[in-house]
Amino acid sequence: MEKINPAEPAIGCRVKQETIVVALGGNAILRPGQRGTYAEQMENVRKTSAQLAELILNGKRLVVTHGNGPQVGRIFQQQENGTRVGIPAMPLFVCGAMSQGQVGYMIQQALYNELIKAGCKKTVVTLICQSLVDPSSEAFQNPSKPIGSFYSEAEAQKAAEEKGEVWKEDSGRGWRRVVPSPEPLSCVEIDAIKSLIAEGVVVVISGGGGIPVVRDSSGILTGIDAVIDKDLGAQVIARETGANVLLILTDVANVAINYRMPEEKKLGAIPLAEMKAYYQQDHFKAGSMGPKVLAAIRFIEGGGDKAVITSLENALLGAEGKIGTVITR
Amino acid sequence: MEKINPAEPAIGCRVKQETIVVALGGNAILRPGQRGTYAEQMENVRKTSAQLAELILNGKRLVVTHGNGPQVGRIFQQQENGTRVGIPAMPLFVCGAMSQGQVGYMIQQALYNELIKAGCKKTVVTLICQSLVDPSSEAFQNPSKPIGSFYSEAEAQKAAEEKGEVWKEDSGRGWRRVVPSPEPLSCVEIDAIKSLIAEGVVVVISGGGGIPVVRDSSGILTGIDAVIDKDLGAQVIARETGANVLLILTDVANVAINYRMPEEKKLGAIPLAEMKAYYQQDHFKAGSMGPKVLAAIRFIEGGGDKAVITSLENALLGAEGKIGTVITR
Repeated sequence: MEKINPAEPAIGCRVKQETIVVALGGNAILRPGQRGTYAEQMENVRKTSAQLAELILNGKRLVVTHGNGPQVGRIFQQQENGTRVGIPAMPLFVCGAMSQGQVGYMIQQALYNELIKAGCKKTVVTLICQSLVDPSSEAFQNPSKPIGSFYSEAEAQKAAEEKGEVWKEDSGRGWRRVVPSPEPLSCVEIDAIKSLIAEGVVVVISGGGGIPVVRDSSGILTGIDAVIDKDLGAQVIARETGANVLLILTDVANVAINYRMPEEKKLGAIPLAEMKAYYQQDHFKAGSMGPKVLAAIRFIEGGGDKAVITSLENALLGAEGKIGTVITR
Repeated sequence: MEKINPAEPAIGCRVKQETIVVALGGNAILRPGQRGTYAEQMENVRKTSAQLAELILNGKRLVVTHGNGPQVGRIFQQQENGTRVGIPAMPLFVCGAMSQGQVGYMIQQALYNELIKAGCKKTVVTLICQSLVDPSSEAFQNPSKPIGSFYSEAEAQKAAEEKGEVWKEDSGRGWRRVVPSPEPLSCVEIDAIKSLIAEGVVVVISGGGGIPVVRDSSGILTGIDAVIDKDLGAQVIARETGANVLLILTDVANVAINYRMPEEKKLGAIPLAEMKAYYQQDHFKAGSMGPKVLAAIRFIEGGGDKAVITSLENALLGAEGKIGTVITR
């Protein structure tokens, strides 16, 4: 960490640094109701980065992971539209790589800038990241995540026959392609991430949970169309880098049980066993709070110190376990 | 470098390793006449990676840079088309970031796989890379690189007025937006690249010459719509990493003077001074061999050992200076 202003004290160089893997939710990049212009997304990312910069300025080593739902969805839709003017569409997993470039660029520049404003010059860099998934996992037996536009039954059947894709009728609105949502097992590029963390570089990684790839018996990697949960992807990075804290930032300050019921109760500091019990009692919605809680549980079970689920605005206090839902052993 | 088959001798761990920065031309990814499907591009990248793997297996440290012309062009066109279905278009420099993700993913996976086939397990990773340009440079006074589709004069004037863009009439075919082509000065993420090279990681970097950014007086970075020459981008990486060799791979085996004239002469081993003289005599076409020769000259002037311009198929012998146009001090 090279200080621009030598009059300022060097921060974060004196104490044993805690490593925090942050998982940014969709609202960190694109907020509900926005059109999603570049200016809007970049302003959201700037505000998010101001929060993240606080963590670094408080002496934490930071690894940033992020969702990519709206971004990859739009890129995929642009691929579909582009075929009408003769541009071959890239597969979903390549769209994922594109979205890692897009969102990663925004975060690495915005976070660099927020640190510069605070007088701290630090390298921030995005790594394109492949997540290994198991093609024999149950997720591949029952693809469930709809992607892309709605099509007619005839179009869907044609695509299913010609390309071996799975298509499903979606609530009377038409047919959509569905892809599996397998669990990420490991990050192919983990050694590079660890090297950079050790050098004090801030790494942006695992966008959208990583690009899903499968490995054959000879070790060869191939991309596969699937949707990985970004919080489970963040947990893989946190586990494999030996991070101290997994900080999942979302749009609410606390996880709640009996959510939206009269007996709703917000969870604060909570031991692992209690959180696991709530998880097994199905308190948390699949595709929403469910995977966040699961990622947190797995991180603590794997030896992590602290998993925190809170809102973006609470990042700094959350990382210290002073606010939000804080799961410990 | 972890060997999968312990019976094979460990290669590249015994000698002082030479660092080679490779600049891949467009034909390494997409060949003339191809539609540019993912399968086609990936097969080209696989063949390219088989060449690059040979360099690594022969004990070289490798940094891979690449062009992105067709890829970023298509992404930009998809952005234009997407606006018709209500998807806000990302700026050109964000399209550049997307193309770094796309092409980087293909190279990092294909090169990893080619190494695995040879029994060598090595981390290969793409870094999203920003190239600093000077907004006061001459290039910004006269934008010259056409991008995107052809439009009517009225549409061009509207865009020019509303967005401050520069548009030019293009050979009677319609109006196209033009952007500057400034020189890359430095790579913002260079420290991360150097750390990874030192750890033996193969880095894919500077796709399309890097994402063009400008720095204001307080140090803040902002993306800017421009087109950077990828060979000059590669030269910046080669200079800043202290590489020994800059290896520019293109579709011809040698640079020629008096190109396509009766007195055409292919250049082999050639000292810097002679190459500079030919360059100043305007033997090399702007936008084609010109920037390659310029990148080579600058690399040697900056202290590099050897700059080689040759065809993709000649990569291994070229890196050793045994084939192609080899410029030395």
